[in-house]
Amino acid sequence: MKTMREIREECGVFGVYGTRKENVALLTYYGLYALQHRGQESCGIAVNNGKEILLHKDVGLVQEVLTEKIMDSLGTGNMAIGHVRYGTTGNSGRANAQPLVVKHLKGTLSTVHNGNIVNAFQLRHALEMDGAIFHTTSDTEVISYVITNERIKKPEIEDAVLSAMDILEGAYSLILMTENKLLAVRDKHGFRPLCYGVTSDGTYVIASESCALDAVGARFIRDIRPGEIVVFEESGVYSIDDNCGKAEEALCIFEYIYFARPDSVIDGYSVHKARLRAGAFLAKDHPVDADIVVGVPDSGIDGAIGYSCASSIPYGTGFIKNKYVGRTFISPAQKMREELLKIKLNPVRDVVSGKRVILVDDSIVRGTTSARIVRLLRDAGAKEVHLRVTSPPFVNPCYYGTDIDSKDNLIACKYSVNEIARIIGVDSLGYLNVEHLPYIADETGTKKYCTACFTGEYKTDIRNVHKYCFE
Amino acid sequence: MKTMREIREECGVFGVYGTRKENVALLTYYGLYALQHRGQESCGIAVNNGKEILLHKDVGLVQEVLTEKIMDSLGTGNMAIGHVRYGTTGNSGRANAQPLVVKHLKGTLSTVHNGNIVNAFQLRHALEMDGAIFHTTSDTEVISYVITNERIKKPEIEDAVLSAMDILEGAYSLILMTENKLLAVRDKHGFRPLCYGVTSDGTYVIASESCALDAVGARFIRDIRPGEIVVFEESGVYSIDDNCGKAEEALCIFEYIYFARPDSVIDGYSVHKARLRAGAFLAKDHPVDADIVVGVPDSGIDGAIGYSCASSIPYGTGFIKNKYVGRTFISPAQKMREELLKIKLNPVRDVVSGKRVILVDDSIVRGTTSARIVRLLRDAGAKEVHLRVTSPPFVNPCYYGTDIDSKDNLIACKYSVNEIARIIGVDSLGYLNVEHLPYIADETGTKKYCTACFTGEYKTDIRNVHKYCFE
Amino acid sequence: MKTMREIREECGVFGVYGTRKENVALLTYYGLYALQHRGQESCGIAVNNGKEILLHKDVGLVQEVLTEKIMDSLGTGNMAIGHVRYGTTGNSGRANAQPLVVKHLKGTLSTVHNGNIVNAFQLRHALEMDGAIFHTTSDTEVISYVITNERIKKPEIEDAVLSAMDILEGAYSLILMTENKLLAVRDKHGFRPLCYGVTSDGTYVIASESCALDAVGARFIRDIRPGEIVVFEESGVYSIDDNCGKAEEALCIFEYIYFARPDSVIDGYSVHKARLRAGAFLAKDHPVDADIVVGVPDSGIDGAIGYSCASSIPYGTGFIKNKYVGRTFISPAQKMREELLKIKLNPVRDVVSGKRVILVDDSIVRGTTSARIVRLLRDAGAKEVHLRVTSPPFVNPCYYGTDIDSKDNLIACKYSVNEIARIIGVDSLGYLNVEHLPYIADETGTKKYCTACFTGEYKTDIRNVHKYCFE
Amino acid sequence: MKTMREIREECGVFGVYGTRKENVALLTYYGLYALQHRGQESCGIAVNNGKEILLHKDVGLVQEVLTEKIMDSLGTGNMAIGHVRYGTTGNSGRANAQPLVVKHLKGTLSTVHNGNIVNAFQLRHALEMDGAIFHTTSDTEVISYVITNERIKKPEIEDAVLSAMDILEGAYSLILMTENKLLAVRDKHGFRPLCYGVTSDGTYVIASESCALDAVGARFIRDIRPGEIVVFEESGVYSIDDNCGKAEEALCIFEYIYFARPDSVIDGYSVHKARLRAGAFLAKDHPVDADIVVGVPDSGIDGAIGYSCASSIPYGTGFIKNKYVGRTFISPAQKMREELLKIKLNPVRDVVSGKRVILVDDSIVRGTTSARIVRLLRDAGAKEVHLRVTSPPFVNPCYYGTDIDSKDNLIACKYSVNEIARIIGVDSLGYLNVEHLPYIADETGTKKYCTACFTGEYKTDIRNVHKYCFE
Repeated sequence: MKTMREIREECGVFGVYGTRKENVALLTYYGLYALQHRGQESCGIAVNNGKEILLHKDVGLVQEVLTEKIMDSLGTGNMAIGHVRYGTTGNSGRANAQPLVVKHLKGTLSTVHNGNIVNAFQLRHALEMDGAIFHTTSDTEVISYVITNERIKKPEIEDAVLSAMDILEGAYSLILMTENKLLAVRDKHGFRPLCYGVTSDGTYVIASESCALDAVGARFIRDIRPGEIVVFEESGVYSIDDNCGKAEEALCIFEYIYFARPDSVIDGYSVHKARLRAGAFLAKDHPVDADIVVGVPDSGIDGAIGYSCASSIPYGTGFIKNKYVGRTFISPAQKMREELLKIKLNPVRDVVSGKRVILVDDSIVRGTTSARIVRLLRDAGAKEVHLRVTSPPFVNPCYYGTDIDSKDNLIACKYSVNEIARIIGVDSLGYLNVEHLPYIADETGTKKYCTACFTGEYKTDIRNVHKYCFE
Repeated sequence: MKTMREIREECGVFGVYGTRKENVALLTYYGLYALQHRGQESCGIAVNNGKEILLHKDVGLVQEVLTEKIMDSLGTGNMAIGHVRYGTTGNSGRANAQPLVVKHLKGTLSTVHNGNIVNAFQLRHALEMDGAIFHTTSDTEVISYVITNERIKKPEIEDAVLSAMDILEGAYSLILMTENKLLAVRDKHGFRPLCYGVTSDGTYVIASESCALDAVGARFIRDIRPGEIVVFEESGVYSIDDNCGKAEEALCIFEYIYFARPDSVIDGYSVHKARLRAGAFLAKDHPVDADIVVGVPDSGIDGAIGYSCASSIPYGTGFIKNKYVGRTFISPAQKMREELLKIKLNPVRDVVSGKRVILVDDSIVRGTTSARIVRLLRDAGAKEVHLRVTSPPFVNPCYYGTDIDSKDNLIACKYSVNEIARIIGVDSLGYLNVEHLPYIADETGTKKYCTACFTGEYKTDIRNVHKYCFE
Repeated sequence: MKTMREIREECGVFGVYGTRKENVALLTYYGLYALQHRGQESCGIAVNNGKEILLHKDVGLVQEVLTEKIMDSLGTGNMAIGHVRYGTTGNSGRANAQPLVVKHLKGTLSTVHNGNIVNAFQLRHALEMDGAIFHTTSDTEVISYVITNERIKKPEIEDAVLSAMDILEGAYSLILMTENKLLAVRDKHGFRPLCYGVTSDGTYVIASESCALDAVGARFIRDIRPGEIVVFEESGVYSIDDNCGKAEEALCIFEYIYFARPDSVIDGYSVHKARLRAGAFLAKDHPVDADIVVGVPDSGIDGAIGYSCASSIPYGTGFIKNKYVGRTFISPAQKMREELLKIKLNPVRDVVSGKRVILVDDSIVRGTTSARIVRLLRDAGAKEVHLRVTSPPFVNPCYYGTDIDSKDNLIACKYSVNEIARIIGVDSLGYLNVEHLPYIADETGTKKYCTACFTGEYKTDIRNVHKYCFE
Repeated sequence: MKTMREIREECGVFGVYGTRKENVALLTYYGLYALQHRGQESCGIAVNNGKEILLHKDVGLVQEVLTEKIMDSLGTGNMAIGHVRYGTTGNSGRANAQPLVVKHLKGTLSTVHNGNIVNAFQLRHALEMDGAIFHTTSDTEVISYVITNERIKKPEIEDAVLSAMDILEGAYSLILMTENKLLAVRDKHGFRPLCYGVTSDGTYVIASESCALDAVGARFIRDIRPGEIVVFEESGVYSIDDNCGKAEEALCIFEYIYFARPDSVIDGYSVHKARLRAGAFLAKDHPVDADIVVGVPDSGIDGAIGYSCASSIPYGTGFIKNKYVGRTFISPAQKMREELLKIKLNPVRDVVSGKRVILVDDSIVRGTTSARIVRLLRDAGAKEVHLRVTSPPFVNPCYYGTDIDSKDNLIACKYSVNEIARIIGVDSLGYLNVEHLPYIADETGTKKYCTACFTGEYKTDIRNVHKYCFE
């Protein structure tokens, strides 16, 4: 249950390239709306209308920031890019919102970014030594600087990006917009997803996830390959693959388990199916005699169904989530805090009362939310609660664009599985076996993933990662 | 799928009676938040602080109308009532919002109402003949007038309400607040639900549905009986049952099928279980060879699970609903309208592609939404689509507080089941057999319901129901 | 300086009657905007579009409440009425906002009212005895009841109003809107102003003050006479004067001194000229040797110019008022409160420094604001400060629609002129001589006024005025 | 009358330096509120709390942008700077809002700027050649770059600013905030005003105009001298005057005539007194036999009083300005546009009717507003209208921070005085004689001003001023 937002994806990106002036801003709006789960703190759209770049970005959900009046002011154009960003606290939110639009010697560059540059601190310091000033604390501004500085020396933006890809280390799925081109760029490891499609009007659409292509009625064409640059320009679409195959593939496995929407297909594998399979592995690895399998909404549901199918224990709707929750909801005062969960998430008493319940969730971070949910089930009369988790224990920080950062906050760094079970208050606890991870999306186990948060196997050099990079 | 809002409940009511001053407004806020599904047009809270009634109501969701600033202005008190109301269009929204607070000869009367008075037009005309003026077009103002006019002649509010119950015909679950009492009143037929409970602090809580008691951490005590008045006052809680058993019980069966939240228990029967059972009946009555059962979110999900269990055909997550939808979402222009559904509801391709799909929904009104959803499945590759509906066909208007009003808009009034199947584009169509209706909630079939919209068997005289009553 | 709002007018009214559908709401908007000085708490517009009455009213300034979206929703029509209301505190603001629209036996009646009914309590009690319920605490609802109850017995609204005028005692300038007529009504004493005019399109416009006719480009026709009903209907405009001349004329003299805008002409006399003349009287009655005459913005400016002309002491701009003040301005915390005045009102140092200053203000209520303004002058270097007030001392409450209510708050009830001078910190203090009052507007002294707040000579029986009437 | 906003100042700046943590943000809020007349498009505040810079800026008035919630989020600190900016149209508003906060090699630099850099285009191009990227189109970002690039080479910010002053050409009154210092900087010519003072708490306050010092209760100390840097730091306040006396003084004379508030004192001369004197010069140069002198509110009022005193023709209040105007006011449609002026500005009929009127205004730009105001007077019955203008004709663009930019829009570039009189519809027209300009503020005529817009005598080389500089 992520109403507590224990882990957050950093971003979702979206881009549109049309052959004539049209409402590219509205297409981007719908695309961002479909990607809203990837970031709820801020969002923005930049439209290229052939004469200038019109930009609006602010703190808030897509529907809050991009009002009808704002959308009108963005007008029409033949290119646009958009971004949703996750929530940090504090005043930096608006300054760090994207797209980032900068003017440089050879024009204008607009950038949206999903990921995290691990050598951003070093790059930034070097730039400052040369006189650069920064308006934000975001690594996206570093990316812009690196690309525009390469651009001074190169005849074309493509060349500048190719060079920049040798300088930038870490995770980046980018969409870049110049005066007359759109570029979709995925880092050499392919840490974060990125794909594109085309609408029936022939308008190209680029998105973090395929569900955003669906949302705008576009036909999926293919994923951008790790290391690839796909260029959208007047003469057509072409691929620059000089950097492809230069590094080990490392798509974030947690995209399948939690970040992505179940109706998305990433690098050829269905997110929904991966979750079912994770549930099925759990049923095999951690069987238990029980009456009902329930999932923690929303991301535990598919795992629960998978567990149920594999175990033949019936699946049930364990909780009703209040769907009217919003930003302005008044939270209960401290003394009522324990009740908060029930306001947002209420167990269905007759499903669990008197039952031995298998509860499926996608992950455990601190354990506090899990403990509360378990208590809800017990209060509703569950006789036993067996927690099954569709991921292995988190034991390492992530440097590639999520906020699983500190070992101090990870319950699995401090306690054994048995201890965690006791803390959370469950009768048994089973995590997904780490060996099954490669098989949840690709049954054959051929595709390679980044599983560093579970295994500690980082695909880039992280010895010099500076704290700065997590701001 | 009710994102198209084909049918609407008219209201949800909530009340709090405490023995000392406390934040009754905030309790009401949480209660209304849990009842938001019963009405999204307007809402309001009236607080009795011992000296005066503070009221705020407006058009909008609970979180939009009842901001932190407004909640602060309502202060503390020992009684409060609140209301959520469904959406009509036009300017009348704010005027008709509730609670309705009126001053009369013997004090102040605050009223919240769920239901519909079928003789409101006649009562209103008679009152106007006597010089009454009306500020709203709502039957709630008629109720207030009838009760306060009785009150002039009676020593106590309870007596006035008892008399008024002989005058008011139709559906009404009321909470009334006077200077020092709270009254929960349910019409003689018990058309609409109403129950009460108590918090660990000893504060009494009244609500349309038990899920709202859960939301505020209150223990469910019991349902208000049809015809009963339950009085909450300083000396305690007592029941006036003079009007109980005077009319045939007639709880709206559609509360179980669609209106109520699955985690609510109404008149002793679980809403969730009733939906499972409706799905199971469908599996028995309209079996079909298929690969997967999916439900239309949110209210078709339980029916699909019930169908799956009874048929042993696997249950799957057929659709992902975008959960960030809000009031300010910019709708696509006409030419993109067909895509709208995908923005809000996207099929999970790998669940349905190449499959024979059983699609479970709660009802069909006009059929247009169903047709669109079916098309989504076909576009996503479903080989066959078999629609199963957890209610019988709508063939009659409802006069008791929902907006199933005109035969012209009911597809089942104009077409046979086969024709509807063809119009909607499904391979087969099966409705819940009307004979099973009495068994979905109460397995023994003992409890009596209002099923007029399906059967035409009205429990009150509707020959003189005036069009006015549906405003 | 009324940024402290020591005295408040209760209301401004505006009405439009056109012969064809047009944007009557927008005309009303501009009219209310010109009358905003008569009430800043709440406002509203009711439009009659031939089929129904569309109403919007709320707490706030005209521009805050009547947004473009709201104005669009009010549509076109051939009649509209509007209202601005002064500021009370608390939650009652919205409930008591006007227009008041009620449905009665013979149709709909929409009312806007400026004034105060002195027998409202008695009338209300009698109505309640007959079963009436009230939604507001405003005497406007009593007016609506009295008129609609008369209407039951009478064939036409005009007859009902004529009868009602014998029942309603006190001050009332009303605009009433029925299905097909607009009525402008002024009480028999003519306490509050009311006039009408016509636009070049032939649309009739009724307003509290002539400045609102100017604002909509209407030509002033004449004032409504005390006791008169002017009816605007399809066949034309006609006057019912049965109640004219039945009571002593008693226009509130304070309209000239403070309430009305200087560019308005009331009952034939210029407000601006009346203020100049009041200043001139002060120069004659309370001469003093000085270097400069300055006025307290905005309502003391004209008095200062009048004093200057009559005394030949130069006039100067003594203060600059910050014109960007708004509702959301953050007030300084207590310790900075003394500085507040300077933020909003800053003396022009070189005008007053080293000078003997004559300061002209329109009135003194509690004296606290005057004291602060005097201190500002002294801090800016004024050698002497001589305060001249363009009204006599307030010594009695007003029952006719202003909030000069309690003797406890009136400094002149407790202290002599000399004591007040000392308290306020001025070198000399001179009030307008009460004998000059009748000559400030009408030089001949023929016109009769209500001067009760200064003289105690009430024109209606106030022995039974109930506290209720001032809510 | 500047409701038509024919000319606009570009900015107002404000800064606070305290010796301990306090509510510097609130002080800045009040300071900006007092400077609101210098810019209504956008505003912002940056607070230095010893650990980080908290910034908020947006499009809107001070009260709209800096809400209580935002102010709370800015917290306390010992330094803050703030800015108000004038209104351009389009999306660039928010991006160009100030303060501009940048991170550079040696820390953070926050800048607010009033003025215009005439060689900004050249500087920007050179920076871009070196790899710089720009986020805004504002010359303030160029200033930040120039200073931070100098900073790399210099040990202290003061040295960097001294060097930068040799690079930056044009008008700039700056407040710079570093980690531990506040710097007030005025360009060598002193085009724009800048002064500082101290509160009774010992907190230093810097402002564009002295009225802002008054607003926060600070005692005026002195103006910053042209070319001077005043440094506020822990050890005290000190002045760097290396650049003083290096260029001809050139305070914008139009600050006295129109931009500044009359209660401000600039470089030792009272704005109010300068306006009176300009009016008096007009009386001498362009006498006419008339009955009344009136001023166009607000900036023509003082000129009118000055004319009246010098001519002994009585002064009168010619117009009433509606003081409730705000951003959300709904403007009349085209066909009613002519009436717009009356809504906002209504003549006082009895002051002007039948009179020979002398109308005093501060300037004529296009002439359209003047023509409308003259028509208002004629419609109100003025027999003659003689327009007197307290400035000479505009015939040249301004490059120093106002928007008098194009000769095409200046009526005086195209027509003779007689022709303008005919176009505007006045009986006679008299401008301030250009020879009197140097004497309006400083009676001795010693002080030097920039009068380029009237005389064409620019104090900097303007041959290479690029169009870019006016964005």
